Parts: sequence; C-alpha cells; structure tokens
Amino acid sequence: MTETPIRFGILGCAGIARTLSRAIILSPNSTLYAVGSRSFDKAKKFAAENGFPPSAKIYGNYIDVLDDPDVDAVYVPLPTSMHLEWAVLAAEKQKHVLLEKPVALNVAEFDQIIQACEVNGVQFMDGTHWMHHPRTAKMTEFVSDTHRFGQLKTIHSIFSFAGGDYFLKNDIRVKPGLDGLGALGDVGWYCIRAILWAFDYELPKTVTAFRGPVLNEEGVILECGSYLQWEEGKTATFHCSFLSNLTVDMTALGTVGTLQVHDFAGPYEEKSASFTTVSQIGLTERSLPSHHVVTTDLPQEASMVTEFSRLVKSIKDGGSKPEAKWISLSRKTQLVVDAVKASIENGFESVQVEA
Amino acid sequence: MTETPIRFGILGCAGIARTLSRAIILSPNSTLYAVGSRSFDKAKKFAAENGFPPSAKIYGNYIDVLDDPDVDAVYVPLPTSMHLEWAVLAAEKQKHVLLEKPVALNVAEFDQIIQACEVNGVQFMDGTHWMHHPRTAKMTEFVSDTHRFGQLKTIHSIFSFAGGDYFLKNDIRVKPGLDGLGALGDVGWYCIRAILWAFDYELPKTVTAFRGPVLNEEGVILECGSYLQWEEGKTATFHCSFLSNLTVDMTALGTVGTLQVHDFAGPYEEKSASFTTVSQIGLTERSLPSHHVVTTDLPQEASMVTEFSRLVKSIKDGGSKPEAKWISLSRKTQLVVDAVKASIENGFESVQVEA
Repeated sequence: MTETPIRFGILGCAGIARTLSRAIILSPNSTLYAVGSRSFDKAKKFAAENGFPPSAKIYGNYIDVLDDPDVDAVYVPLPTSMHLEWAVLAAEKQKHVLLEKPVALNVAEFDQIIQACEVNGVQFMDGTHWMHHPRTAKMTEFVSDTHRFGQLKTIHSIFSFAGGDYFLKNDIRVKPGLDGLGALGDVGWYCIRAILWAFDYELPKTVTAFRGPVLNEEGVILECGSYLQWEEGKTATFHCSFLSNLTVDMTALGTVGTLQVHDFAGPYEEKSASFTTVSQIGLTERSLPSHHVVTTDLPQEASMVTEFSRLVKSIKDGGSKPEAKWISLSRKTQLVVDAVKASIENGFESVQVEA
Repeated sequence: MTETPIRFGILGCAGIARTLSRAIILSPNSTLYAVGSRSFDKAKKFAAENGFPPSAKIYGNYIDVLDDPDVDAVYVPLPTSMHLEWAVLAAEKQKHVLLEKPVALNVAEFDQIIQACEVNGVQFMDGTHWMHHPRTAKMTEFVSDTHRFGQLKTIHSIFSFAGGDYFLKNDIRVKPGLDGLGALGDVGWYCIRAILWAFDYELPKTVTAFRGPVLNEEGVILECGSYLQWEEGKTATFHCSFLSNLTVDMTALGTVGTLQVHDFAGPYEEKSASFTTVSQIGLTERSLPSHHVVTTDLPQEASMVTEFSRLVKSIKDGGSKPEAKWISLSRKTQLVVDAVKASIENGFESVQVEA
C-alpha cells in the first residue's frame, strides 16, 4: 500500500497494548506514531519494546497524544472507568477512537462517548478482535443458511480463565475503581457479543442472571452467568469466569444444524482457525460433524486495525461518514452487560432489555 | 462364556427395544428368551425381526412374561406412566429389572419401585447406556484428577433433537398420559445424569428452571433448561429439546482443566469414541486440546446389559445382594428431574433438592 497509513497514538501501556502495537505494525494501512503514559520512561520503554519507529513520539501523559496534530486515531486500552473521559476527549480532539472493551461502565456513559464521536464525525470501534477474523464471516454464512442451520433456537457461550492468586489480588480487572464490571465486562463481553452475533444482533427481551455469582470482597464479579430470552422459545445462556480453566466456547443450535467453536474469541493458531458444523434433519439420521478450516495472513487483531483504518481513511480522504455499525454493536453488547448486572443487583429477577 | 446366560424377557415392542434386543444378543452372558406385547402378532413379528431364537417364548400380554419361571430378568421399555405398575409387578414376580429412563413420573412412584426391588431382592438398573461405555470410565479418571482437571466449577450439557412434525404429533414422548415428562424425562434425563456424574453424584442444593420452556397444547415439555447450584460457586446448566438439531454435548470446567464431549450419550461410532481435554494453568499459557480415543468391542448398550447380567448372575448363583448403586443414581436423577418440573410449575422459583 503506497498511500499514507493511518497514524496511531496509544493511550497507556496496558498488556493488551502490546498485542495492538504488533497488530498496527502488521496492518498494511496503519502505523505506530505515538504513545503516552503517565510516566515518560514507561512510554519510552514501551515504544522501544514494541516496535515503534525511532521517529515515534513519546509523551509523559495522555493529553499530549490527543493534542498532536499528526495523530489520526487513538487506541485506548485504559481501565474501563477512564473510558468516558478519554474517549470523549479524543473525539473532541478529532481523533478516531479504537476503544478497548467493555466500552464503558454502563450504557449511559457509553451514550456520552457516542455523542462525542457523532458530533465530531470520528470513527468508533471497540476492540472485539474476533469480529474481524475471516472465520467469523464463514460462521455467519452457516448460521444464516436456512438449509444447513435453519432457525437459531439457542446458543451457549463460555469464556473463562483461571486468573490465579496474583491476578485475583492485583489485576485492574478485579478493582472496583478501575474495571468495575470484572469478569462480566472482561470475558462476559465476548460471550454476550457471540450471542448477539448468532441472533443477528437482535436484542433479547429479558435477561435473568444466574443465582450465586462469585464476587470478591469489594463486590467485583469474578464469575457469573445468565439466561437470555427472545420471543418464540429462542434462548441463550453464558458463563464467564476468572476462576476456571481457559475455555472459550460457543455452541449454537438451529432447527436443522449445529455450530461449535472452541476458541471463538481468539483462535489457537494465528493463521488457521476452525469450526465444526453438523447439518441434519430428524431423529435417526446421524452424520459426522464437518470440520471447517479458515486460513488468514493477518492475525485477527491486525484485521481489526486494518478495517478501522480503512474506515478512517475514507473519512479523511473521501469525506465519508463514520460507519455507525460498530457503535451499534458496542451499545447492544453494553446494554446486555448492564442488564446482567442489574439482574444480579435485583435479586436475580428478570430484567427487560430496552434499546 | 460357558455358563448359562441370563434369560431376558422384554415387555413391549418399543423402538428402543430393538436396540436392546441386539444388545442382549451381543452380550456374552445374556440371551433373548421371551417377549410380550398386548398383541401376540406384534410380539411374534418383533421376535422374528430382532434375532430372537426359534425357541423364544412369544406372549400376547405382559403378565405371562413375568409368570414364566425361566425368565430371569425383564427389560421394560414401556411408556413412563406404566413403569410403576410393571416394574413393581416384575419385582414381585422375582424378576430382575432393567428399566428404561425416565424411571418413573416422579420420585414418589420410583420409591415404590425401589421398595419392591429391595423387598424381593432383585437387581435394578436403568437404561442409561453411556454410563457403561469404557470412555466414561476414562472421562471419570480425568475429572477426578486434581492435577489435570482440578476442582469442578461448572458443567453445561445439551441434548436436543429435531423431532419433526410426525414425532411432535404422535410420539408417546409428547403424550401426557404416556410419557408426561416429555423432553425433560427423555433427553433432559441424560443431561442431568451427565451433570451428576461430573459432580460425583453430589446432588445440587437448588434447581432453577429457565423461563419460557416450550410446552405442547397438552402441557408436555418439548424444550426446557435449568440452572443448578451447589455450594462454593459450583454450578451447572442444561438445555433439552425436541425442537432443535441433534446435539449431545457436555463441557465441564475445572479449575485447571476442561473436558468436552460431543456425543456423550451415544458415540458417533460404535467401536470408537472420543473426548477432548485441555489442562493448563494461568492466563497466558495456551495449549492445544488433547484428543482421546477409546475403543470397545461391544456397543455401550451391550456393555450395560453385560454388567446388569453379571450382577444378576452373582445374585442367582452366589447369593450376593443386589448392587444398590444403580438405584441411587436413578433416584438422584429423578429427584433433579422432579425439581426442574417443580420449578417450571412454581413460576421458575428456585427449588431445594432434598434426598
């Protein structure tokens, strides 16, 4: 690509920022341009360790990244509690916003981010990598196929990992002042997105959290699950946890087909990912599952960055409007996150989900 | 095996009786001896089509099978609503009882069956084939292994099949007067047994049915699901249905390992069955799943018959007492079935499970 790549500034040096720095390097229409941290030395070290070019700008704070006129877009991996402030500021400074998930502490906060992005005409996207893997497009084909899959009846999703003692004491994801949504916002986000994806982004009517979620002493969710209900007997369940072995699973049942993926949020291998389907009708016919393999040159997070930069480029160059789809998906996911949290707080009553 | 095989009488000519007739033929310590149906001609046809020896007794009713002094054991595939009467009668006639699942319409009925079996000293076993597959023993080793699996945290199980229009209008499993427990008793039984198996048969404290089960016009469950809770954040969920594509799934999450089986209740192939495990600790280490294959000479239902006949033989020959384990597993499964049904009937409130 000979055109000028989109120049990224990164706010903060979180672990996930390492993954995204590499993704920006791998993305053909993107380039690492600046990094800001509350500590200049930390930012410098981060840039050195993560392949930033020698010309990259190193800032000892976040605001200087936003004030740099050559930064096109920012990637914001800050703790969730800081998203409102910094995503809004970024939009106001005319920077396009690639924001880590969960996008906000609740949908009211996210609506302020949306407004800032819309008023300022900047592109928004959240950091849900797997949406951009070509495998996802292939799986979408399957669940949309009335002959192979039929109508979706139910989907179950799991995302858990065993955080371990150090994580459970120290990680920002278990601190109420930082990532107050805990496992629900971190890994539950992926489960909810998978469920919405399977339902072609139709919101459930009601959400009922499972009794007995595990909270830490400060009230942050370490493990929870929920039941989601649509009309006509369509349902979903999910389980998210920091307390059990790494499992990243999705099983979707249609009237005539079944889809299974065991690494939906992040494939075991970067260049090759698989999923399994079974299509059949009736009780007695039994067919072996079909194993589908999808190859890709770019890791999914680099595909995400590439798509984001493509959208930014067309706004910058062509006067296109921002693609609103990504805001919509983020908002629906956040609405369900909020409903699960509300159900937990309301004694596991069913909560209506209203767009 | 040169010893006299256990002589089976079969009550009724249900579809599943074809599978069990073959299993009895394949089982080295068992033999087909008699069949009874309300129609003599139907019984005769069944015997001819299912490999009964020419000497087999054909009866035009059930009671004559029980009155035949040469019948050692009966297999009872009658509709659930008839289990109480015929299992009790069989026990009273000193016949050992292999009873199809669900074992009864409720645990109160089952307790009468238990009492009849205990008073008459006959062996009882229900027809949950997969308990007897050698794969199950290998999976038990895995979930019992604190190094590879750790402590069980949660398990999700699915058993569904798309019954189709004819099934949904005509099958005994959708008739309130015959198999009143519908999908819950038929396929939900397997999910509940899988969950109890993973928890080493510890009963859950509470059961909460999911809202919005699908019932037919006569109130029989066509689809439902439930959440089960133990102490210390241990949970399970299941989904059972006559309305979506054949899916027979179990995913168990331990603190350091995960078990997945995609055909737990009946393997895709008779002589070879597989399961998948992942064992790892922590957040960043990622290992590929291990695929385990277990081969067997006998299909699982023939292994079941063989084990049942072995127990019967040792009672007959050696004066052993009946093995009480199988009654216990049936009763626990039925208790959970009853609790799910009670929760559905009580507006999806949590129901305490009491042994």
